[in-house]
Amino acid sequence: MGDRRNFPAGLTINAERLWSRHMELARIGAIDGTGSCRLAMTQEDSEARALFASWCRQAGLDMHLDRAGNMFAMRAGADKSRLPVASGSHLDTQPHGGRFDGISGVLAALEVIESLNDHGIETAAPLAVVNWTNEEGVRYAPGLLGSAWYAGLMDDGGLAEVRAADGTRFEDEARQRGWLGDSAQKFPIGAFLELHIEQGPILERDQIQIGIVTSVQGLRWLDIDVVGIDAHAGTTPLDQRKDALLTAARMLVALNEEGRKCGPAARVSVGHLRTATDGPSTIVGHASFVLDIRHPDAATLERLTSDCASACRAIGDASGCEVSVSERIAVPPTQFDKTCVEALERAASEQGYSHRQMASGALHDAANVAKIAPTAMVFVPCRDGMSHNVNEYASPDDLAAGANVLMRALLELAG
Amino acid sequence: MGDRRNFPAGLTINAERLWSRHMELARIGAIDGTGSCRLAMTQEDSEARALFASWCRQAGLDMHLDRAGNMFAMRAGADKSRLPVASGSHLDTQPHGGRFDGISGVLAALEVIESLNDHGIETAAPLAVVNWTNEEGVRYAPGLLGSAWYAGLMDDGGLAEVRAADGTRFEDEARQRGWLGDSAQKFPIGAFLELHIEQGPILERDQIQIGIVTSVQGLRWLDIDVVGIDAHAGTTPLDQRKDALLTAARMLVALNEEGRKCGPAARVSVGHLRTATDGPSTIVGHASFVLDIRHPDAATLERLTSDCASACRAIGDASGCEVSVSERIAVPPTQFDKTCVEALERAASEQGYSHRQMASGALHDAANVAKIAPTAMVFVPCRDGMSHNVNEYASPDDLAAGANVLMRALLELAG
Repeated sequence: MGDRRNFPAGLTINAERLWSRHMELARIGAIDGTGSCRLAMTQEDSEARALFASWCRQAGLDMHLDRAGNMFAMRAGADKSRLPVASGSHLDTQPHGGRFDGISGVLAALEVIESLNDHGIETAAPLAVVNWTNEEGVRYAPGLLGSAWYAGLMDDGGLAEVRAADGTRFEDEARQRGWLGDSAQKFPIGAFLELHIEQGPILERDQIQIGIVTSVQGLRWLDIDVVGIDAHAGTTPLDQRKDALLTAARMLVALNEEGRKCGPAARVSVGHLRTATDGPSTIVGHASFVLDIRHPDAATLERLTSDCASACRAIGDASGCEVSVSERIAVPPTQFDKTCVEALERAASEQGYSHRQMASGALHDAANVAKIAPTAMVFVPCRDGMSHNVNEYASPDDLAAGANVLMRALLELAG
Repeated sequence: MGDRRNFPAGLTINAERLWSRHMELARIGAIDGTGSCRLAMTQEDSEARALFASWCRQAGLDMHLDRAGNMFAMRAGADKSRLPVASGSHLDTQPHGGRFDGISGVLAALEVIESLNDHGIETAAPLAVVNWTNEEGVRYAPGLLGSAWYAGLMDDGGLAEVRAADGTRFEDEARQRGWLGDSAQKFPIGAFLELHIEQGPILERDQIQIGIVTSVQGLRWLDIDVVGIDAHAGTTPLDQRKDALLTAARMLVALNEEGRKCGPAARVSVGHLRTATDGPSTIVGHASFVLDIRHPDAATLERLTSDCASACRAIGDASGCEVSVSERIAVPPTQFDKTCVEALERAASEQGYSHRQMASGALHDAANVAKIAPTAMVFVPCRDGMSHNVNEYASPDDLAAGANVLMRALLELAG
């Protein structure tokens, strides 16, 4: 690694082909203007996989499927002793997803290989394009399923237990659609780079073309349960209420303050709040919400989580409600590999793209893969930081810049 | 009126019969321990009506049904020129209702008449026991349906339009079950008294047996709509969010403060809050809630409503969210009839029951009837102020006290 003798001056990927493939894939499961809905292993996901596989065949790649349905399209290298250097992301989408989240990472990796084909460039190590199964985790929970199994975070028994809400087993549906590999062996890789849209507003705000992702921030989900007393809104004086929704509202305000106090890297969010009753005239006796806390630094995340839990308990006490706090998910921060990060950074610098190091706010398959192979990510800007939304947008120029950075870094790593 | 010559010393209602009829009715549609579910015009409501009608027949009363399904069971008076003095409430319940809300008012009125029968006491004016149709408004909206039609707040055309969520017309179901009267004429009454459980904690807290209800507080419902921007919880910095749920939470906290500033009679509540998205990692771009504001004084209610709307708009502006405020319901306060209130107060005093004047926090059929006839209400305590709940409870002694007060006041009004 570190040998850049293979890199011809002026080599760039084919930006038009990269963009047109985005548009072609987006027609599968198209919804609401520019949206796509391709939940993992549904008919739509299956059609997208088949189209991707046909492109890989046309590019002369060998397709390997594993028991989680992950797709590895391999281009042979000159050196039989080297493990493949892989790149990719996911083709499945959110229910009201866009054209870029995940897709761009798969298509950019494929575009790199096709450009190398076009220019007759060989690498020492093999290259592989990966489509990780069920990153989004909508029809089948948990998300990041394929990469979690691949990285050994879920065993075969766990995979066999994965079911949709309607009871369908993941493995049955994957097999029925033809996407279940029968090899017990995992496709070996020597390094992994993932290109992704930022899904946040920072690159766009700072007018920077390339984000070099050095880490994925850690995540905690706390289930907060608030129990007061159901009561009649007309008859119960304000000072005799134990109003669980009002108490939860006080918590949301205080939790946001905790996040702000912790500095600009902290994320404290509540997107899911439920009440046991729903009548406009019934004071809510039971409310619950999920608190999403993120920070790139493990110790700070730990302290912030503890401060948030304490704030909820104190507000519960002051409001006469019973509060319970339980942890649902704890994902420690991931530090990406220095060699991979530096290869991406050099690739951006040498091609003249503005770039900055950043932490990923969202989880990605790369965070799982990082547990077993040197890994890093490259971010491209997306409009208004918008994602998981039919209006999600990354420009052809930004996607091309990201793919060019990816190409140069892959060439460096593959030698 | 005001002539109490008919009232024999020591006359009391039969407390045991009153209690046992509560228990017998509660078996129809019994749920969850001591709960009842009898939504208006369902099979369960129909069975409760039939049982009530059989008791009325046994008491020698003539049953009149009107076009809203209201039931009037009449006992003739000595003076043919006098209009009936009526009392009652409703037999329908909430989905997880109790044994007393509404039921106690119907059974207390029936008990008064049976006690008068037992003691051979005649009145100048006729007496009538009323069961108003669909007070709760669960299967068929709006609630207080029977009394609203009766008081002319809804015309025959409006009644014909009332449908359940499944499309069933109220009139069709009422006719099919045999509870639709065909007389276009409304049963005439000269005055109306309604006994009800308080549904609030004040009488119990102050250890007072009888509430003399002088008014029903006014009600405003505001629909508050908050529009921000959906965003990713992991990637979007706290200071770049337009978080509709957090903004709504700030509003809930501020609205509670507005209510407290307005004094002990004010009620400001949010029991219904919705978010357009529900993902723990998605910052909510759209939240809405219904604000329930009540006060017995019309001018104060108006001012409080205006202050609440202003507070919401200011918080929306400060949070970068768009806020719309629209009025869904406005019910002005009802002042009850002085003669009726005084009759109830004298009845409580002369029988030695502790009592206080109070406003009703909840709406009742009596508020509708008050628009066309002299009306007042009597409240009895209920445990923990709890209502619309399977654990709703009023003691046999408190129910008997309320029925005794009702009897003495009805005798005074009927002469």
